[in-house]
Amino acid sequence: MVVKIYGMTPAVCPQRVMHCLIEKGVEFEIIHVDLEKGEHKTPEYMTKQPFGQVPYIVDGDFELFESRAIVRYYAAKYAGRGPNLLGRTLEEKARMDMWLDVEAINLNPLVFPIVFNLFVLPGQGVAGNMAEAQASAEKLDKVLEVHERQLSKTKYLAGDEFTLADLTHIPALRYVVENCGMPHLISNKKHVKAWWADITSRPAWKKVMDMVESRALKYSP
Amino acid sequence: MVVKIYGMTPAVCPQRVMHCLIEKGVEFEIIHVDLEKGEHKTPEYMTKQPFGQVPYIVDGDFELFESRAIVRYYAAKYAGRGPNLLGRTLEEKARMDMWLDVEAINLNPLVFPIVFNLFVLPGQGVAGNMAEAQASAEKLDKVLEVHERQLSKTKYLAGDEFTLADLTHIPALRYVVENCGMPHLISNKKHVKAWWADITSRPAWKKVMDMVESRALKYSP
Ligand SMILES: N[C@@H](CCC(=O)N[C@@H](CS)C(=O)NCC(=O)O)C(=O)O
Ligand SMILES: N[C@@H](CCC(=O)N[C@@H](CS)C(=O)NCC(=O)O)C(=O)O
Repeated sequence: MVVKIYGMTPAVCPQRVMHCLIEKGVEFEIIHVDLEKGEHKTPEYMTKQPFGQVPYIVDGDFELFESRAIVRYYAAKYAGRGPNLLGRTLEEKARMDMWLDVEAINLNPLVFPIVFNLFVLPGQGVAGNMAEAQASAEKLDKVLEVHERQLSKTKYLAGDEFTLADLTHIPALRYVVENCGMPHLISNKKHVKAWWADITSRPAWKKVMDMVESRALKYSP
Repeated sequence: MVVKIYGMTPAVCPQRVMHCLIEKGVEFEIIHVDLEKGEHKTPEYMTKQPFGQVPYIVDGDFELFESRAIVRYYAAKYAGRGPNLLGRTLEEKARMDMWLDVEAINLNPLVFPIVFNLFVLPGQGVAGNMAEAQASAEKLDKVLEVHERQLSKTKYLAGDEFTLADLTHIPALRYVVENCGMPHLISNKKHVKAWWADITSRPAWKKVMDMVESRALKYSP
């Protein structure tokens, strides 16, 4: 059964799901939902994702939205193959859950105003609100100092293995680093910098970037 | 080993953890952290909870913050006793994770401006921003319509059993219903109303409310 991801590949939340499935060697295809045309706000779409956002997945007769719930599901379903992603004890799993929530609750809401004002709006020829972007960048810097302290103690956020806690950080932070002129938020922190180089050079993440670049809509291991 | 919850009982995030531990019959004590005195912003406190918030827990030599990670941990650790809380199949578990994220990401950020402007500020003799509270209430109403559609199909959010997905909604919504003069957000939705009556009448939640009322700091089953 080929997993169907409804979304578009440049969007960060579908990228989180693509990355997880590639790490686990799970075949999938993207059913393109064009956010610029508002295809995610049609009543029909919203019967599947009631908040009118991407992604949601269809896997046989199972459907799910919320990107972090989807990656938790596939990491558990394919626990026995590929990298572990979940942590090996209840305590490692708990730390993975903690950092996944830190990303969702403390980090991600700061990334949005940066990317929106410095990348999305300028891309549409509209001037972004620089003060708003700068205020968020200062807060994001403080959040990443918390990551720096953790990464001075353990190689990855939840311990000594790469897990969903690390994976979930990549898509949105990549926009800040590569498209918003703010690589210093990462590069001025020794351990965050090394961690970032490590996690973004994983073959599975590079494959996600290849798919975005080449507009590929299918993956098979 | 008695679990230590650092926090204060009127705060919603510690209540989430208290409720879960009582459902599971796990002994705990509250180590009072006075938010009004700013005890959560001291450098010492922030070595434990680096964002300067409550709660965090200490359980022997294991420490954890993020209330939703903490409840996931105890629901898994004590899976074999008390109510299930997690879902029984990978798919039920995934739906539980999905609704837990809906609460954290889509619902909780709307509750904060309501409670702050209609309860916290007035309690300090300061006028809240009514327009901000009203705008959030309108968005919250739309989110709860999504809950209404789900609850017209299943008794609880993740299926036919009470799970963490339901539990996580109680503390913050209770403030909106009971302290902000907005019970209609719940009572004008047939299935949400029945669900709310059901989940808030659980003995474990009533025990949380008793502890808040009586300022008790210890629980043993
Ligand atoms: N919490 C959701 C958020 C989904 C989300 O924000 N998706 C974005 C793209 S990354 C979207 O659909 N934006 C368009 C919109 O919100 O209208 C998840 O993680 O799946
Ligand atoms: N995501 C955190 C949020 C914790 C949180 O917001 N705690 C509130 C009390 S419910 C707090 O400490 N507020 C004081 C502050 O943020 O300064 C969790 O769920 O544990």
